[in-house]
Amino acid sequence: MESFGVRTESRNCLVDITAKVRSAVAGAGVRSGIAFIYVPHTTAAVTVNESYDPDVGKDIEDTLSELVPANAGYAHSEGNADAHVKATLVGACAQVPVEDGDLMLGRWQGVFFCEFDGPRTRRVLVKVLKSAE
Amino acid sequence: MESFGVRTESRNCLVDITAKVRSAVAGAGVRSGIAFIYVPHTTAAVTVNESYDPDVGKDIEDTLSELVPANAGYAHSEGNADAHVKATLVGACAQVPVEDGDLMLGRWQGVFFCEFDGPRTRRVLVKVLKSAE
Amino acid sequence: MESFGVRTESRNCLVDITAKVRSAVAGAGVRSGIAFIYVPHTTAAVTVNESYDPDVGKDIEDTLSELVPANAGYAHSEGNADAHVKATLVGACAQVPVEDGDLMLGRWQGVFFCEFDGPRTRRVLVKVLKSAE
Repeated sequence: MESFGVRTESRNCLVDITAKVRSAVAGAGVRSGIAFIYVPHTTAAVTVNESYDPDVGKDIEDTLSELVPANAGYAHSEGNADAHVKATLVGACAQVPVEDGDLMLGRWQGVFFCEFDGPRTRRVLVKVLKSAE
Repeated sequence: MESFGVRTESRNCLVDITAKVRSAVAGAGVRSGIAFIYVPHTTAAVTVNESYDPDVGKDIEDTLSELVPANAGYAHSEGNADAHVKATLVGACAQVPVEDGDLMLGRWQGVFFCEFDGPRTRRVLVKVLKSAE
Repeated sequence: MESFGVRTESRNCLVDITAKVRSAVAGAGVRSGIAFIYVPHTTAAVTVNESYDPDVGKDIEDTLSELVPANAGYAHSEGNADAHVKATLVGACAQVPVEDGDLMLGRWQGVFFCEFDGPRTRRVLVKVLKSAE
Protein backbone atom coordinates (compact mmCIF):
# COMPACT_ATOMS: atom_id res chain seq x y z
CA MET A 1 0.00 0.00 0.00
CA GLU A 2 1.39 3.37 -1.05
CA SER A 3 0.17 6.70 0.33
CA PHE A 4 0.79 10.42 0.10
CA GLY A 5 -0.46 13.66 1.63
CA VAL A 6 -2.46 16.42 -0.03
CA ARG A 7 -2.62 19.99 1.29
CA THR A 8 -5.87 21.70 0.28
CA GLU A 9 -6.10 25.49 0.30
CA SER A 10 -9.82 26.27 0.50
CA ARG A 11 -13.11 24.79 1.74
CA ASN A 12 -13.98 23.39 -1.70
CA CYS A 13 -11.38 22.57 -4.33
CA LEU A 14 -10.28 19.90 -6.76
CA VAL A 15 -6.55 19.15 -6.64
CA ASP A 16 -4.86 17.35 -9.55
CA ILE A 17 -3.02 14.39 -7.95
CA THR A 18 -2.21 12.53 -11.18
CA ALA A 19 1.57 12.85 -10.79
CA LYS A 20 1.48 11.61 -7.18
CA VAL A 21 -0.74 8.67 -8.12
CA ARG A 22 1.66 7.84 -11.00
CA SER A 23 4.61 7.75 -8.58
CA ALA A 24 2.67 5.54 -6.17
CA VAL A 25 1.79 3.15 -8.99
CA ALA A 26 5.42 3.02 -10.11
CA GLY A 27 6.38 2.25 -6.50
CA ALA A 28 3.92 -0.65 -6.38
CA GLY A 29 5.84 -2.42 -9.14
CA VAL A 30 2.81 -4.02 -10.82
CA ARG A 31 2.97 -4.23 -14.64
CA SER A 32 -0.70 -4.89 -15.37
CA GLY A 33 -3.73 -4.52 -13.11
CA ILE A 34 -6.00 -1.93 -11.54
CA ALA A 35 -4.95 1.00 -9.35
CA PHE A 36 -7.30 1.91 -6.50
CA ILE A 37 -7.06 5.48 -5.26
CA TYR A 38 -8.75 5.60 -1.85
CA VAL A 39 -9.63 8.57 0.36
CA PRO A 40 -9.91 7.60 4.08
CA HIS A 41 -11.98 10.73 4.83
CA THR A 42 -15.74 11.41 4.92
CA THR A 43 -15.80 15.02 3.70
CA ALA A 44 -13.60 14.53 0.65
CA ALA A 45 -13.64 12.30 -2.43
CA VAL A 46 -11.70 11.31 -5.56
CA THR A 47 -12.65 11.50 -9.24
CA VAL A 48 -11.24 11.00 -12.72
CA ASN A 49 -11.96 13.89 -15.10
CA GLU A 50 -10.32 16.36 -17.49
CA SER A 51 -6.97 17.63 -16.26
CA TYR A 52 -6.08 19.83 -19.25
CA ASP A 53 -8.33 22.82 -18.47
CA PRO A 54 -8.43 23.72 -14.73
CA ASP A 55 -11.85 25.32 -15.35
CA VAL A 56 -13.36 21.82 -15.50
CA GLY A 57 -12.48 21.18 -11.86
CA LYS A 58 -13.87 24.62 -10.94
CA ASP A 59 -17.17 23.84 -12.70
CA ILE A 60 -17.46 20.48 -10.91
CA GLU A 61 -16.80 22.18 -7.55
CA ASP A 62 -19.28 25.01 -8.22
CA THR A 63 -22.05 22.76 -9.56
CA LEU A 64 -21.76 20.45 -6.55
CA SER A 65 -22.06 23.49 -4.26
CA GLU A 66 -25.22 24.61 -6.07
CA LEU A 67 -26.76 21.13 -5.84
CA VAL A 68 -25.76 20.67 -2.20
CA PRO A 69 -25.74 24.12 -0.52
CA ALA A 70 -23.53 24.76 2.51
CA ASN A 71 -26.36 25.72 4.86
CA ALA A 72 -29.66 24.05 4.16
CA GLY A 73 -31.01 23.05 7.55
CA TYR A 74 -29.07 19.78 7.84
CA ALA A 75 -29.45 17.52 10.89
CA HIS A 76 -25.68 16.95 11.37
CA SER A 77 -24.56 19.70 13.71
CA GLU A 78 -20.90 20.09 12.75
CA GLY A 79 -21.60 22.50 9.88
CA ASN A 80 -20.18 20.20 7.20
CA ALA A 81 -23.20 18.04 6.29
CA ASP A 82 -22.94 19.33 2.70
CA ALA A 83 -19.39 17.97 2.51
CA HIS A 84 -20.57 14.49 3.59
CA VAL A 85 -23.31 14.49 0.94
CA LYS A 86 -20.87 15.57 -1.79
CA ALA A 87 -18.45 12.81 -0.68
CA THR A 88 -21.15 10.20 -1.32
CA LEU A 89 -22.10 11.69 -4.71
CA VAL A 90 -18.48 11.58 -5.95
CA GLY A 91 -17.18 8.54 -4.06
CA ALA A 92 -14.23 7.57 -1.84
CA CYS A 93 -12.42 5.32 -4.34
CA ALA A 94 -11.40 5.74 -7.99
CA GLN A 95 -10.08 2.93 -10.20
CA VAL A 96 -7.75 3.24 -13.16
CA PRO A 97 -6.33 0.41 -15.29
CA VAL A 98 -2.55 -0.10 -15.14
CA GLU A 99 -0.50 -1.34 -18.11
CA ASP A 100 3.30 -1.42 -18.42
CA GLY A 101 3.49 -0.24 -14.84
CA ASP A 102 1.70 3.06 -15.52
CA LEU A 103 -1.84 4.46 -15.28
CA MET A 104 -3.73 3.84 -18.51
CA LEU A 105 -5.66 7.13 -18.45
CA GLY A 106 -7.56 8.42 -21.46
CA ARG A 107 -5.99 11.33 -23.35
CA TRP A 108 -7.68 14.07 -21.31
CA GLN A 109 -8.06 12.22 -18.00
CA GLY A 110 -6.38 13.02 -14.70
CA VAL A 111 -7.07 12.03 -11.10
CA PHE A 112 -8.44 14.69 -8.72
CA PHE A 113 -8.63 14.85 -4.96
CA CYS A 114 -11.96 16.58 -4.13
CA GLU A 115 -11.89 18.67 -0.97
CA PHE A 116 -15.28 19.64 0.45
CA ASP A 117 -14.33 20.74 3.98
CA GLY A 118 -10.90 22.30 3.75
CA PRO A 119 -8.42 23.75 4.06
CA ARG A 120 -6.80 20.63 5.54
CA THR A 121 -3.97 18.18 5.20
CA ARG A 122 -5.40 14.96 3.79
CA ARG A 123 -4.17 11.45 3.03
CA VAL A 124 -4.61 9.35 -0.13
CA LEU A 125 -3.99 5.58 -0.26
CA VAL A 126 -3.02 3.82 -3.49
CA LYS A 127 -3.15 0.07 -3.93
CA VAL A 128 -2.51 -1.80 -7.18
CA LEU A 129 -3.99 -5.25 -7.77
CA LYS A 130 -2.29 -7.43 -10.36
CA SER A 131 -3.94 -9.13 -13.35
CA ALA A 132 -3.54 -12.86 -13.72
CA GLU A 133 -2.45 -12.36 -17.36
CA MET B 1 -17.92 -14.79 -2.41
CA GLU B 2 -19.52 -13.89 0.91
CA SER B 3 -23.03 -12.44 1.22
CA PHE B 4 -25.55 -11.30 3.81
CA GLY B 5 -29.10 -9.96 4.01
CA VAL B 6 -30.23 -6.47 5.00
CA ARG B 7 -33.76 -5.68 6.20
CA THR B 8 -34.69 -2.07 5.48
CA GLU B 9 -37.53 -0.43 7.41
CA SER B 10 -38.62 2.52 5.25
CA ARG B 11 -38.71 3.67 1.63
CA ASN B 12 -35.48 5.65 1.99
CA CYS B 13 -32.84 4.88 4.59
CA LEU B 14 -29.13 4.35 5.06
CA VAL B 15 -28.25 1.24 7.08
CA ASP B 16 -24.80 0.90 8.66
CA ILE B 17 -23.49 -2.50 7.46
CA THR B 18 -19.88 -2.06 8.60
CA ALA B 19 -19.98 -4.93 11.13
CA LYS B 20 -21.48 -7.33 8.56
CA VAL B 21 -18.93 -6.34 5.94
CA ARG B 22 -16.14 -6.84 8.51
CA SER B 23 -17.38 -10.38 9.24
CA ALA B 24 -17.57 -11.16 5.53
CA VAL B 25 -14.02 -9.88 5.03
CA ALA B 26 -12.78 -11.99 7.95
CA GLY B 27 -14.53 -14.98 6.35
CA ALA B 28 -12.75 -14.39 3.05
CA GLY B 29 -9.39 -14.97 4.72
CA VAL B 30 -7.41 -12.45 2.66
CA ARG B 31 -4.67 -10.56 4.56
CA SER B 32 -4.09 -7.71 2.11
CA GLY B 33 -6.18 -6.58 -0.83
CA ILE B 34 -9.40 -4.75 -1.71
CA ALA B 35 -12.92 -5.58 -0.48
CA PHE B 36 -15.75 -5.05 -2.98
CA ILE B 37 -19.19 -4.51 -1.47
CA TYR B 38 -21.73 -5.10 -4.23
CA VAL B 39 -25.49 -4.50 -4.31
CA PRO B 40 -27.28 -6.72 -6.89
CA HIS B 41 -30.32 -4.38 -6.92
CA THR B 42 -31.27 -1.40 -9.11
CA THR B 43 -33.13 0.74 -6.54
CA ALA B 44 -30.49 0.60 -3.80
CA ALA B 45 -26.79 1.44 -3.53
CA VAL B 46 -23.76 1.35 -1.21
CA THR B 47 -21.54 4.15 0.07
CA VAL B 48 -18.69 4.85 2.49
CA ASN B 49 -19.32 7.81 4.80
CA GLU B 50 -19.35 8.89 8.46
CA SER B 51 -20.76 6.25 10.78
CA TYR B 52 -20.27 8.10 14.08
CA ASP B 53 -23.25 10.49 13.85
CA PRO B 54 -26.42 8.87 12.39
CA ASP B 55 -27.56 12.34 11.30
CA VAL B 56 -25.05 12.18 8.45
CA GLY B 57 -26.93 9.27 6.86
CA LYS B 58 -30.20 11.13 7.35
CA ASP B 59 -28.80 14.23 5.62
CA ILE B 60 -27.57 12.14 2.68
CA GLU B 61 -30.97 10.47 2.37
CA ASP B 62 -32.89 13.78 2.61
CA THR B 63 -30.63 15.67 0.20
CA LEU B 64 -30.91 12.89 -2.40
CA SER B 65 -34.71 13.06 -2.08
CA GLU B 66 -34.66 16.82 -2.64
CA LEU B 67 -32.42 16.47 -5.70
CA VAL B 68 -34.42 13.55 -7.13
CA PRO B 69 -38.07 13.96 -6.04
CA ALA B 70 -40.31 10.92 -5.75
CA ASN B 71 -42.90 12.08 -8.28
CA ALA B 72 -41.56 14.25 -11.05
CA GLY B 73 -43.23 12.95 -14.19
CA TYR B 74 -40.82 10.12 -14.85
CA ALA B 75 -41.25 7.82 -17.88
CA HIS B 76 -40.73 4.57 -15.92
CA SER B 77 -44.23 3.52 -14.82
CA GLU B 78 -43.45 1.53 -11.68
CA GLY B 79 -43.38 4.56 -9.38
CA ASN B 80 -39.75 4.07 -8.36
CA ALA B 81 -37.86 5.94 -11.10
CA ASP B 82 -36.40 8.23 -8.43
CA ALA B 83 -34.88 5.19 -6.71
CA HIS B 84 -33.16 4.12 -9.95
CA VAL B 85 -31.69 7.59 -10.46
CA LYS B 86 -30.39 7.70 -6.88
CA ALA B 87 -28.86 4.25 -7.34
CA THR B 88 -26.79 5.56 -10.26
CA LEU B 89 -25.73 8.71 -8.38
CA VAL B 90 -24.42 6.69 -5.41
CA GLY B 91 -23.32 3.48 -7.17
CA ALA B 92 -23.76 -0.29 -6.83
CA CYS B 93 -20.24 -1.13 -5.62
CA ALA B 94 -18.01 0.29 -2.86
CA GLN B 95 -14.33 -0.57 -2.43
CA VAL B 96 -12.31 -0.52 0.78
CA PRO B 97 -8.65 -1.52 1.23
CA VAL B 98 -7.97 -4.58 3.40
CA GLU B 99 -4.85 -4.94 5.59
CA ASP B 100 -4.17 -7.60 8.24
CA GLY B 101 -7.44 -9.26 7.22
CA ASP B 102 -9.60 -6.27 8.18
CA LEU B 103 -11.16 -3.24 6.46
CA MET B 104 -8.76 -0.31 6.46
CA LEU B 105 -11.41 2.36 6.96
CA GLY B 106 -10.56 5.92 7.91
CA ARG B 107 -11.27 6.94 11.51
CA TRP B 108 -14.84 8.16 10.87
CA GLN B 109 -15.72 5.88 7.94
CA GLY B 110 -18.34 3.15 7.86
CA VAL B 111 -20.10 1.28 5.03
CA PHE B 112 -23.79 2.03 4.39
CA PHE B 113 -26.45 0.16 2.49
CA CYS B 114 -28.61 2.83 0.80
CA GLU B 115 -32.28 1.86 0.41
CA PHE B 116 -34.30 3.97 -2.02
CA ASP B 117 -37.36 1.76 -2.56
CA GLY B 118 -38.01 -0.06 0.73
CA PRO B 119 -39.01 -1.47 3.04
CA ARG B 120 -37.53 -4.70 1.63
CA THR B 121 -35.18 -7.56 2.35
CA ARG B 122 -32.02 -6.98 0.32
CA ARG B 123 -28.80 -8.85 -0.41
CA VAL B 124 -25.20 -7.61 -0.28
CA LEU B 125 -22.25 -9.47 -1.88
CA VAL B 126 -18.69 -9.11 -0.58
CA LYS B 127 -15.66 -10.24 -2.51
CA VAL B 128 -12.05 -9.66 -1.50
CA LEU B 129 -9.27 -9.61 -4.09
CA LYS B 130 -5.75 -10.29 -2.86
CA SER B 131 -2.68 -8.12 -3.41
CA ALA B 132 0.36 -9.65 -5.00
CA GLU B 133 2.50 -8.28 -2.16
CA MET C 1 -7.35 -6.04 -21.30
CA GLU C 2 -10.38 -6.33 -23.56
CA SER C 3 -12.04 -3.35 -25.27
CA PHE C 4 -14.87 -2.48 -27.60
CA GLY C 5 -16.37 0.57 -29.34
CA VAL C 6 -19.72 2.22 -28.68
CA ARG C 7 -21.48 4.47 -31.19
CA THR C 8 -23.75 6.98 -29.46
CA GLU C 9 -26.57 8.64 -31.41
CA SER C 10 -27.42 11.79 -29.44
CA ARG C 11 -25.85 14.32 -27.03
CA ASN C 12 -27.20 12.51 -23.97
CA CYS C 13 -28.06 8.83 -23.95
CA LEU C 14 -27.60 5.63 -22.00
CA VAL C 15 -26.58 2.65 -24.14
CA ASP C 16 -27.01 -0.90 -22.82
CA ILE C 17 -23.58 -2.54 -23.21
CA THR C 18 -24.28 -5.65 -21.12
CA ALA C 19 -23.85 -8.10 -24.03
CA LYS C 20 -20.54 -6.52 -25.10
CA VAL C 21 -19.23 -6.57 -21.51
CA ARG C 22 -20.28 -10.25 -21.21
CA SER C 23 -18.30 -11.11 -24.36
CA ALA C 24 -15.27 -9.24 -23.06
CA VAL C 25 -15.47 -11.08 -19.73
CA ALA C 26 -15.75 -14.43 -21.52
CA GLY C 27 -12.67 -13.43 -23.54
CA ALA C 28 -10.71 -12.71 -20.38
CA GLY C 29 -11.03 -16.34 -19.29
CA VAL C 30 -11.31 -15.66 -15.54
CA ARG C 31 -13.69 -17.97 -13.64
CA SER C 32 -14.07 -15.94 -10.45
CA GLY C 33 -13.18 -12.30 -9.75
CA ILE C 34 -14.27 -8.75 -10.45
CA ALA C 35 -14.86 -7.17 -13.87
CA PHE C 36 -13.87 -3.51 -14.22
CA ILE C 37 -15.65 -1.58 -16.97
CA TYR C 38 -13.65 1.58 -17.61
CA VAL C 39 -14.44 4.62 -19.76
CA PRO C 40 -11.27 6.49 -20.88
CA HIS C 41 -13.30 9.66 -21.61
CA THR C 42 -14.13 12.74 -19.52
CA THR C 43 -17.62 13.53 -20.86
CA ALA C 44 -19.06 10.02 -20.53
CA ALA C 45 -19.48 7.47 -17.75
CA VAL C 46 -20.63 3.94 -16.93
CA THR C 47 -23.32 2.70 -14.55
CA VAL C 48 -25.15 -0.46 -13.47
CA ASN C 49 -28.94 -0.11 -13.41
CA GLU C 50 -32.18 -1.68 -14.67
CA SER C 51 -31.94 -2.97 -18.23
CA TYR C 52 -35.46 -4.41 -18.53
CA ASP C 53 -37.37 -1.15 -19.09
CA PRO C 54 -35.54 1.35 -21.37
CA ASP C 55 -37.51 4.16 -19.66
CA VAL C 56 -35.20 3.82 -16.64
CA GLY C 57 -32.20 4.92 -18.72
CA LYS C 58 -34.26 7.81 -20.12
CA ASP C 59 -35.23 8.95 -16.60
CA ILE C 60 -31.60 8.83 -15.45
CA GLU C 61 -30.52 10.87 -18.51
CA ASP C 62 -33.32 13.45 -18.07
CA THR C 63 -32.86 13.85 -14.32
CA LEU C 64 -29.11 14.39 -14.73
CA SER C 65 -29.85 17.08 -17.35
CA GLU C 66 -32.22 18.84 -14.96
CA LEU C 67 -29.68 18.73 -12.13
CA VAL C 68 -26.79 19.83 -14.36
CA PRO C 69 -28.22 22.09 -17.10
CA ALA C 70 -26.43 22.38 -20.45
CA ASN C 71 -25.86 26.14 -20.26
CA ALA C 72 -25.45 27.52 -16.80
CA GLY C 73 -22.59 29.98 -17.07
CA TYR C 74 -19.80 27.44 -16.67
CA ALA C 75 -16.14 28.51 -16.71
CA HIS C 76 -14.98 25.79 -19.14
CA SER C 77 -15.31 27.33 -22.60
CA GLU C 78 -15.87 24.26 -24.77
CA GLY C 79 -19.64 24.14 -24.19
CA ASN C 80 -19.58 20.72 -22.53
CA ALA C 81 -18.92 21.57 -18.87
CA ASP C 82 -22.25 19.92 -17.96
CA ALA C 83 -20.99 16.67 -19.49
CA HIS C 84 -17.83 16.78 -17.32
CA VAL C 85 -19.89 17.33 -14.15
CA LYS C 86 -22.23 14.44 -15.02
CA ALA C 87 -19.21 12.21 -15.68
CA THR C 88 -17.99 12.81 -12.12
CA LEU C 89 -21.45 12.23 -10.60
CA VAL C 90 -21.81 8.85 -12.35
CA GLY C 91 -18.16 7.74 -12.49
CA ALA C 92 -15.66 6.40 -15.03
CA CYS C 93 -15.48 2.81 -13.75
CA ALA C 94 -18.12 0.21 -12.85
CA GLN C 95 -17.39 -3.09 -11.08
CA VAL C 96 -19.36 -6.32 -11.33
CA PRO C 97 -18.54 -9.65 -9.65
CA VAL C 98 -17.65 -12.56 -11.96
CA GLU C 99 -18.52 -16.19 -11.17
CA ASP C 100 -18.27 -19.19 -13.50
CA GLY C 101 -16.71 -16.89 -16.09
CA ASP C 102 -19.79 -14.65 -16.36
CA LEU C 103 -21.03 -11.35 -14.88
CA MET C 104 -22.94 -11.99 -11.67
CA LEU C 105 -25.53 -9.26 -12.21
CA GLY C 106 -28.70 -9.00 -10.15
CA ARG C 107 -31.93 -10.08 -11.86
CA TRP C 108 -32.78 -6.61 -13.26
CA GLN C 109 -29.23 -5.25 -13.64
CA GLY C 110 -27.44 -4.33 -16.85
CA VAL C 111 -24.36 -2.23 -17.65
CA PHE C 112 -24.88 1.14 -19.38
CA PHE C 113 -22.51 3.41 -21.23
CA CYS C 114 -23.58 6.99 -20.36
CA GLU C 115 -23.01 9.52 -23.14
CA PHE C 116 -23.14 13.17 -22.11
CA ASP C 117 -21.49 14.86 -25.12
CA GLY C 118 -22.44 12.81 -28.17
CA PRO C 119 -23.04 11.71 -30.76
CA ARG C 120 -19.57 10.14 -30.87
CA THR C 121 -17.68 6.90 -31.25
CA ARG C 122 -16.40 5.91 -27.81
CA ARG C 123 -14.20 3.21 -26.31
CA VAL C 124 -14.81 0.96 -23.29
CA LEU C 125 -12.05 -1.05 -21.58
CA VAL C 126 -12.80 -4.24 -19.64
CA LYS C 127 -10.35 -5.87 -17.26
CA VAL C 128 -11.08 -8.86 -15.04
CA LEU C 129 -9.09 -9.46 -11.86
CA LYS C 130 -9.04 -12.99 -10.50
CA SER C 131 -9.95 -14.10 -6.96
CA ALA C 132 -7.39 -16.05 -5.01
CA GLU C 133 -10.04 -18.70 -4.19
